[in-house]
Amino acid sequence: MAGLIIAPRARIFHGHEWIYATEIKKTFGNPQPGDVITLKDFRDRPLGSAIYNPQSQIVARRFSRRRQDLDLDFFQRRIGQAIELRKRSAIDETLARLVWSESDGIPGLIVDRYGDHLSVQTLTLAMDLRRDLIRDALVSLLNPKSIVLRNDSPYRKAEGMEPGIEMLYGENPGSFQVRANDLDFEIDLFDGQKTGLYLDQLQSHQEVARMAKGKRVLDCFTNQGGFALACAKAGAAKVTAVDISGVACAAATRNAELNGLELEVIEHNVFDFLKHAQPDYDLIILDPPSFTRNKKTLMDAMRGYKEIHLRSLKLLEKGGILSTFCCSHHASRELFLNNLVDASVDAKKSLRLVQDHGQRADHPILISIPETGYLKGFTTEVIATR
Amino acid sequence: MAGLIIAPRARIFHGHEWIYATEIKKTFGNPQPGDVITLKDFRDRPLGSAIYNPQSQIVARRFSRRRQDLDLDFFQRRIGQAIELRKRSAIDETLARLVWSESDGIPGLIVDRYGDHLSVQTLTLAMDLRRDLIRDALVSLLNPKSIVLRNDSPYRKAEGMEPGIEMLYGENPGSFQVRANDLDFEIDLFDGQKTGLYLDQLQSHQEVARMAKGKRVLDCFTNQGGFALACAKAGAAKVTAVDISGVACAAATRNAELNGLELEVIEHNVFDFLKHAQPDYDLIILDPPSFTRNKKTLMDAMRGYKEIHLRSLKLLEKGGILSTFCCSHHASRELFLNNLVDASVDAKKSLRLVQDHGQRADHPILISIPETGYLKGFTTEVIATR
Repeated sequence: MAGLIIAPRARIFHGHEWIYATEIKKTFGNPQPGDVITLKDFRDRPLGSAIYNPQSQIVARRFSRRRQDLDLDFFQRRIGQAIELRKRSAIDETLARLVWSESDGIPGLIVDRYGDHLSVQTLTLAMDLRRDLIRDALVSLLNPKSIVLRNDSPYRKAEGMEPGIEMLYGENPGSFQVRANDLDFEIDLFDGQKTGLYLDQLQSHQEVARMAKGKRVLDCFTNQGGFALACAKAGAAKVTAVDISGVACAAATRNAELNGLELEVIEHNVFDFLKHAQPDYDLIILDPPSFTRNKKTLMDAMRGYKEIHLRSLKLLEKGGILSTFCCSHHASRELFLNNLVDASVDAKKSLRLVQDHGQRADHPILISIPETGYLKGFTTEVIATR
Repeated sequence: MAGLIIAPRARIFHGHEWIYATEIKKTFGNPQPGDVITLKDFRDRPLGSAIYNPQSQIVARRFSRRRQDLDLDFFQRRIGQAIELRKRSAIDETLARLVWSESDGIPGLIVDRYGDHLSVQTLTLAMDLRRDLIRDALVSLLNPKSIVLRNDSPYRKAEGMEPGIEMLYGENPGSFQVRANDLDFEIDLFDGQKTGLYLDQLQSHQEVARMAKGKRVLDCFTNQGGFALACAKAGAAKVTAVDISGVACAAATRNAELNGLELEVIEHNVFDFLKHAQPDYDLIILDPPSFTRNKKTLMDAMRGYKEIHLRSLKLLEKGGILSTFCCSHHASRELFLNNLVDASVDAKKSLRLVQDHGQRADHPILISIPETGYLKGFTTEVIATR
């Protein structure tokens, strides 16, 4: 079997599962892109099985410490374990990420369940080549009405693959409704600009909504209205939702109507909106899309955060609440928190931490693979300037 | 008024409230230890009022951005605000830390409420000198039956003060019972080796207990049995509690009897116990006392953690749960998590993060004063070795 000999001090010896080009001592056999390969240490001891793609920065991703093929049995077993984990968690597993890549031992495979329909992403070449096996495993385990292959993620480019959306099983269900946090959302897995509902934030929607009663809420980067609607449902006095995308604003408006809730939806650049807004809010939510996908642009992203943090804090008075989220794993929790501290110093406001937010349990975190823990958020309260 | 001129780039210009000796450009007037002083920047602009103690590493602690005396009105107002905050939180404010030093704008004052009785610590010289004012403020706000001045904290030494325990108001209540998490605890604010119940962990007790049903639980460093009893109450199959202190073991046993719950209490050094224990546990809790109080001994403390992490992980099989806590602010969340990662690599076990734990809401965190956020904990599950 073909494979790689790994250099000493590689991350794989410290609990990680990825191999970078610089960590390869030697390639043996003649591994082909997408193959299952064997990893060995520099003393020729086996380290397990990995998927291989020399076009990717991450040349190999280990998925087993043993010799293991990517056959139907493998996919059924691993996907089955992943589903079991969601069932044990206190979440609605009919609306959940059922398979999450490395965290579930299937690097590059993402499966999201929206009731009877599944949305699948194959973000590594090895998974992409095995989409039929994955389809068969999902059909045997879940008997879904349809499976959309939603491969429009920019991450595919890093593996040398083209984007594309197609039906992998069944017929395109078109737009349909799902229920999350006692709210109805209209989604379209095939045609929507996005899947229509970020599953990783469903818990944070609830956590922030618990503080919204009677408050004037501003939800920035509202997308489909997740935070805004949760706050409106929880009894906010008024909810304003801002997004630069007309499609997102239309979706948020439609979702509000669907639930008989009132939102003021404003199609506007959030940075500009915050600059000119009046201090009429008690609770401001900042949940921007990832400002960065790599380390290079991290500092630009942090400058963006500093600006929206500062502008939001200027709008809040004593007792005002700011909930801010960051979904880039490149920004550590500490870096993100310090960004907020800096903004609070500039705004001359002291902040008390009310709640730490993280990703929902359907996006499990493996502590030895830091990339699996990407979402962080803080809810803070402006305290009296002493 | 006497005071200090602060050098540029001091922490106080970045949101903090402390002044170290190295940050002082000049002392003016003739400030006396324990005095309220004025802080000014290097351009002679006022920065607010601080308490002063040249014997401490932290020479001054700002408590107001304005000119402010430490009079009865000040204590009533600030303590009143602190009590209000606890009332707004979803905690039982009759069993809570009511005043927590910098976080409540009264540097060095700690007030814990146990029903009708208060336990007070004055950990800065300025507060110690004003204990009568503090007593009067507490009596007027809370009308307690008694106030114990529980000044046996080692932190007093850093301020050049002697330890001591005395009644500040009313009569020594002796030992009495309080109810926390639906459990009765016997405590003795005056004579106990400790206050008898750590308030900062009451929420974590509940969070861990939620996972304990049907499990064989090992609670290491049990102290008064907080985690152990919460797990037993939640339906654990068996609970073993270990502590090196005979007094702690007796207290845990008494608290178990008080609640009609069964604990196996073992008086033993936890390090040794873990070394020789059989792998008969499904849930192991590690909540040691602070292994370090300063940066110098931080690495020793981390070695201690590495050892108990490793030994615990070796005792756990697939599906086993480890809950581990660290109450030293010198160890960052990241450092502590990485310690656990290293131990898991050595133990050849992969860990999934189940829950992040923090301090209860009665120990509020100010994000610009990192020292106010000291308690961190992780509950992790051993996943199948793939």
